[in-house]
Amino acid sequence: MPWTNQRNKQLIERARRVIPGGMYGHQSTAILPDVYPQFFTRAEGARLWDADGNEYIDYMCAFGPNLLGYRHPAVEAAVSAQRRLGDTMNGPSEIMVELAEQFVSMVSHADWVIFCKNGTDATTMAMMTARSHTKKRKILVAHKAYHGSAPWCNPFTNGTVPEERAHILHYEYNNPASLQDAFRTAGDDVAGVFGSAFRHDVFENQDLPTREYAETARRLCDKTGALLIVDDVRGGFRVARDCSWSRVDVQPDLSAWGKAIANGYALSALAGSEKARAGAQGIFVTGSYWFQAIPMAAAIATLNEIRNSDYLERTEKTGAMLREGLASQAANYGFSLRQTGPVQMPMILFDDDPDLRLGYCWVAEALTRGVYIHPWHNNFICAALTESDVKLTLDATDQAFSVLKKRRPTLEPPEQLKARFDRLHEATLTAAN
Amino acid sequence: MPWTNQRNKQLIERARRVIPGGMYGHQSTAILPDVYPQFFTRAEGARLWDADGNEYIDYMCAFGPNLLGYRHPAVEAAVSAQRRLGDTMNGPSEIMVELAEQFVSMVSHADWVIFCKNGTDATTMAMMTARSHTKKRKILVAHKAYHGSAPWCNPFTNGTVPEERAHILHYEYNNPASLQDAFRTAGDDVAGVFGSAFRHDVFENQDLPTREYAETARRLCDKTGALLIVDDVRGGFRVARDCSWSRVDVQPDLSAWGKAIANGYALSALAGSEKARAGAQGIFVTGSYWFQAIPMAAAIATLNEIRNSDYLERTEKTGAMLREGLASQAANYGFSLRQTGPVQMPMILFDDDPDLRLGYCWVAEALTRGVYIHPWHNNFICAALTESDVKLTLDATDQAFSVLKKRRPTLEPPEQLKARFDRLHEATLTAAN
Repeated sequence: MPWTNQRNKQLIERARRVIPGGMYGHQSTAILPDVYPQFFTRAEGARLWDADGNEYIDYMCAFGPNLLGYRHPAVEAAVSAQRRLGDTMNGPSEIMVELAEQFVSMVSHADWVIFCKNGTDATTMAMMTARSHTKKRKILVAHKAYHGSAPWCNPFTNGTVPEERAHILHYEYNNPASLQDAFRTAGDDVAGVFGSAFRHDVFENQDLPTREYAETARRLCDKTGALLIVDDVRGGFRVARDCSWSRVDVQPDLSAWGKAIANGYALSALAGSEKARAGAQGIFVTGSYWFQAIPMAAAIATLNEIRNSDYLERTEKTGAMLREGLASQAANYGFSLRQTGPVQMPMILFDDDPDLRLGYCWVAEALTRGVYIHPWHNNFICAALTESDVKLTLDATDQAFSVLKKRRPTLEPPEQLKARFDRLHEATLTAAN
Repeated sequence: MPWTNQRNKQLIERARRVIPGGMYGHQSTAILPDVYPQFFTRAEGARLWDADGNEYIDYMCAFGPNLLGYRHPAVEAAVSAQRRLGDTMNGPSEIMVELAEQFVSMVSHADWVIFCKNGTDATTMAMMTARSHTKKRKILVAHKAYHGSAPWCNPFTNGTVPEERAHILHYEYNNPASLQDAFRTAGDDVAGVFGSAFRHDVFENQDLPTREYAETARRLCDKTGALLIVDDVRGGFRVARDCSWSRVDVQPDLSAWGKAIANGYALSALAGSEKARAGAQGIFVTGSYWFQAIPMAAAIATLNEIRNSDYLERTEKTGAMLREGLASQAANYGFSLRQTGPVQMPMILFDDDPDLRLGYCWVAEALTRGVYIHPWHNNFICAALTESDVKLTLDATDQAFSVLKKRRPTLEPPEQLKARFDRLHEATLTAAN
């Protein structure tokens, strides 16, 4: 069946009537190439089907939650069993205790955990715990780092007031001097320092945390009594079977988790060390569905796979295979790629492509050939992706490079991206006035 | 099998090691009577089983989400069907459009809807939309009303900074003069006014909104350009098949929903009128699991039941039967109850019981006889509760009144409540300094 997007277009028209803009949030395709489908019907393993029935080998994993493969048998079996008992009740199921015990046993720095729903819940609770523990106010975050869409951390300021960010200070990721400066600016008032698993900002090259940066953060926190917070919502269990900063041997006081921990079921978590326990116990945090048993059953099954399978090594292997294949193809066609970050969470950008016209053309050509790659957000590789999937992928991307080479002279900057940047720029200016 | 709580106690001990305080949030039993189970194993219809295997006729409905009965067949069938397809994917399923269309068709004031996870997500998005629409800052909320646990609305201030509540002003629910005063204090800077479905504050009598209060709120918003927001997270679809304020013929601009809309699956929503659409479209809001298809499938099935069954009339009938039965029993034993709010969301307090010693003894005696009633939060009645369940309930509560009468002279104020109030008081003072 040839690729088509008629049904998707009809759905977007219907959606525009009953949803502002037709869609919202990080899964909106408004500024992606036109061919990107907004609506999906089905998912299985490393594959997705959109509303028109097109099949894709998937490199976004639902923006992270799909770690083991969509509808992973062990996770689904656990969910089926729990569904026969109950989900949202007057209190948690006892499996919450089991899950907390397992989580704490797997994350070296963690002595306790609090479960919630959104990644933003976990990062906001981290901020509150740091303030509760220190009785101080300032929160240091890396410039451009995403920690959620609550007013204090929203990347866009429209609909917020400046006071909501009153004590948020910025530093440059992987820059110890900049972090030191931020501490100096904050005086004796630093409650917490956020650092992402690695630098995974949109539109940018990715960077693993340097040992010097991570150790400086740890040392400055210890010196001042501030809590060190690793935001592992996106990277958690994708680069290590422990907190991501375990790879540079630095233990935070708090870590925020979500996405992959229940393989797509709605669960996030704040984990903490003994030192931070009283601070966490002193804050009031809750949500209508935070004690659902089904996502916790899914998480227990997911953690079991994380401990007992080679899921991580498999994603590293297929990720490396993809990276090498793409680099070689790009060179063959006279392009040069910036492939950064962990191979299993690849950011794929083109050199000499400031307005993303090359990237947009290339991913669109890959998409209509059955490969879903994101042009400016890090991608994700799930453990269900096989080497044969990567080969099929490389067949499609080879054709995409070939088309790109032919079309290169006539490409224009992506209109949808320009409009978006203008609008956001305007919104930011308006809100700042 | 005689009532026992050995397993619950063991679980609490285990939980204390790996979860701060052993539990957190609105489902914590820390300040409930000792016999209240923290952990549940199973739920079906109007019944719950705790970790020790004790069976309860349930009047809390998971604090609201259980509207039709736990594991309602039509909802579970929809979930089973959707699970075979997919849940968290690279974008929503097309059923999000269908759900939005249905939602908008059922809520008179709504022209659009945005789905999210927590009730707090929906109320925070309402605040952001009001600020985005008006470009003003002040948000008026009723004193003591609960709108979530984000820093701007958290009932406790520990872990937050005063700036996060900088533009939040308070008025008295159902008091038009007080609302007018708040508008005067805010000057020409009111972005939005929150009003709950009805006054359902903890520890207090409940009150339906008066027509005068609701109309005053509408008029002042129209006059100043502020948006009127009904927080229907708790009351939504429990008092009407439309926004709760439809009962006093007042249409808000925005309404926040959650709890009952997917019968326990994790889904909340912000609905709005045409006027507020651009404001909503201008804010960035999202979450890792907001586009899960399973809760949306559950919501479609739930809305179908809401439209096509007599679920509401049944909860009103069993609720009235319970209220009359309890009033009569109380009188027989020489007690007087304050039963306030809609009969299907009953708040049950004792007259002459300032420290809740009567209430705590009575609900504990009912609990160990198989009836789960909350002593200071409004209760909830689901559509699966039968008249025969109410009769069984009244058998148990009659015995509970009998015990209460005998024990009355020797009752002491509940220790756990006193300690809690002291600690919270202290926390509030500390955070304010």
